[in-house]
Amino acid sequence: MTSVPTPFPEPARAELRLEEVLGVLSDPLRLGIVRKLLLESPDTDRSCGWFEIDRPKSTLTHHFKALREAGVTRQRQYGLERRSMVRIDDLDARFPGLLDLVRDWKP
Amino acid sequence: MTSVPTPFPEPARAELRLEEVLGVLSDPLRLGIVRKLLLESPDTDRSCGWFEIDRPKSTLTHHFKALREAGVTRQRQYGLERRSMVRIDDLDARFPGLLDLVRDWKP
Repeated sequence: MTSVPTPFPEPARAELRLEEVLGVLSDPLRLGIVRKLLLESPDTDRSCGWFEIDRPKSTLTHHFKALREAGVTRQRQYGLERRSMVRIDDLDARFPGLLDLVRDWKP
Repeated sequence: MTSVPTPFPEPARAELRLEEVLGVLSDPLRLGIVRKLLLESPDTDRSCGWFEIDRPKSTLTHHFKALREAGVTRQRQYGLERRSMVRIDDLDARFPGLLDLVRDWKP
């Protein structure tokens, strides 16, 4: 039996707040994380190493947590790895078009 | 001859940055200002008194300036009044769909 770990706490779809989602996406590093997931890995969650971002791990942990708490990503723990994926269905349902803006963003 | 005052300095359409626009809209007060303009006065610029926001004038001045500097609004001085309007055409051209999210926002 394949089991998927329970996600870390996150706001439900109905609880997503536009101002919080916009706020968390207003940081270029976080915008880049979400854009890379959308373009290169929309269906598979990824750990922070996959992103090849040259920042301290504690910094990345903070940013990934902020994305999850705003409801932009879902995080699960697989052994020692904490992986993230974009909540595409939830964001498309609540904020249509927003993820297209992220996909089109030029860093 | 009717003359319209020259706008205050603002980023050109091509200079608008998604991260800055999202950042300035991530504040509920500013989101409310832009939403009210879009819904009630898309074609006419308004001074801060029109919004009936119960905050010190210096606070409002700060928020209106932040909106202008991010390129969300255009500001002009009419005598003693500084009025703002949303740069709808510019934002629709650069970030399609974004203003619909603001219109649909529930405070």
